Amino acid sequence: MRIGELARLSGVPVPSIKYYLREGMLPVGERISANQVRYTDAHVRRVRLIRALLEVGGLSIAATREILGAVDTPGGDLHSMLGVAQSAVSREVGDNTSEADRRLAEDEVAKLAERHGWGDVAAKRGNPGWRQLVQIVATYRGLEQHELLGLLDRYAQAAALLAEAELGVIASLGDTDEKVEGVVLGTLLGDAAMAAMRRIAQEAVSARP
Amino acid sequence: MRIGELARLSGVPVPSIKYYLREGMLPVGERISANQVRYTDAHVRRVRLIRALLEVGGLSIAATREILGAVDTPGGDLHSMLGVAQSAVSREVGDNTSEADRRLAEDEVAKLAERHGWGDVAAKRGNPGWRQLVQIVATYRGLEQHELLGLLDRYAQAAALLAEAELGVIASLGDTDEKVEGVVLGTLLGDAAMAAMRRIAQEAVSARP
Repeated sequence: MRIGELARLSGVPVPSIKYYLREGMLPVGERISANQVRYTDAHVRRVRLIRALLEVGGLSIAATREILGAVDTPGGDLHSMLGVAQSAVSREVGDNTSEADRRLAEDEVAKLAERHGWGDVAAKRGNPGWRQLVQIVATYRGLEQHELLGLLDRYAQAAALLAEAELGVIASLGDTDEKVEGVVLGTLLGDAAMAAMRRIAQEAVSARP
Repeated sequence: MRIGELARLSGVPVPSIKYYLREGMLPVGERISANQVRYTDAHVRRVRLIRALLEVGGLSIAATREILGAVDTPGGDLHSMLGVAQSAVSREVGDNTSEADRRLAEDEVAKLAERHGWGDVAAKRGNPGWRQLVQIVATYRGLEQHELLGLLDRYAQAAALLAEAELGVIASLGDTDEKVEGVVLGTLLGDAAMAAMRRIAQEAVSARP
């Protein structure tokens, strides 16, 4: 198909597709004459994925390119793909907590990990979620929001239930392409979906008479 | 106290505090002589809150100012405060879904709302989470990720449990200052905490032999 047809099928306008091509996110099509390039169904799917990452997921061009590079690396297993997706979508949090406060927060997160069976605590310190959680605990402590700290066990229970369900779904997906796309979307849009649902549920609860 | 003491107690360096003052996020202290300004414990707390919003929550200066303005408005009730906090922390998602796809996604979200007792569906359309959820559903549908769509009920169950617990905690907080701070942090850092926990739980599940 030509680029106009690619635009029609993917629902993404031609100028945006040209931008994806220039930025190296979309592989170039097959040149079949001096002024004609042919695209395939794989391009349609990829254009939709790029749009999802950029617009719905809110990723930067750099992070999107990194994720797509990982998706295109043959032989990547799901566990390492999950690592790449997690790093690309995790915002680095600022850290100007004092050494003492950070250590107290680390202890609290380690206890949380133990309570929820997150396995070897030391190994988890490379996880982007770990550093973020330590920073959040330090912040709650600094602001003396002990009641909010008490909610972390609820979050952990909810996260465990979701992780089981998500990885179950991903394991059930068909070919590798579908699987890696599932991991990327499940991580990225899963966060967004959870945040969106929290908004709605909070409003529903707070509006109750 | 002087600005140096404010920096020491809040853990935020003097240049950052001056920046908060210049940007109108932190109220100026009381001038007690030509070259001396006095700060109070309220400033310490406010400096910590600003840092939490900017660095841990990742908010923009504009969004931080908007939230602090709402916090400082006397007589604001919790329900409207929640609305301000939600709008300020919600990223507007791009929307170039076709009209037909959007309508199908809206229908799906409306059914979800009905299943989970989110109350009057029409009223929820003003909620920032609603628009984001419609966009996510449209994206999953466009990429034919039907299995991920099936997970949305799980997210909704988890969100409902968390909303109950969060608003219970907030209702239990003492004075109004503590309450509004709880709403802002619970909304903003609650999202971050949930995302962080999801990372850790996903890794824990995917690492299992």
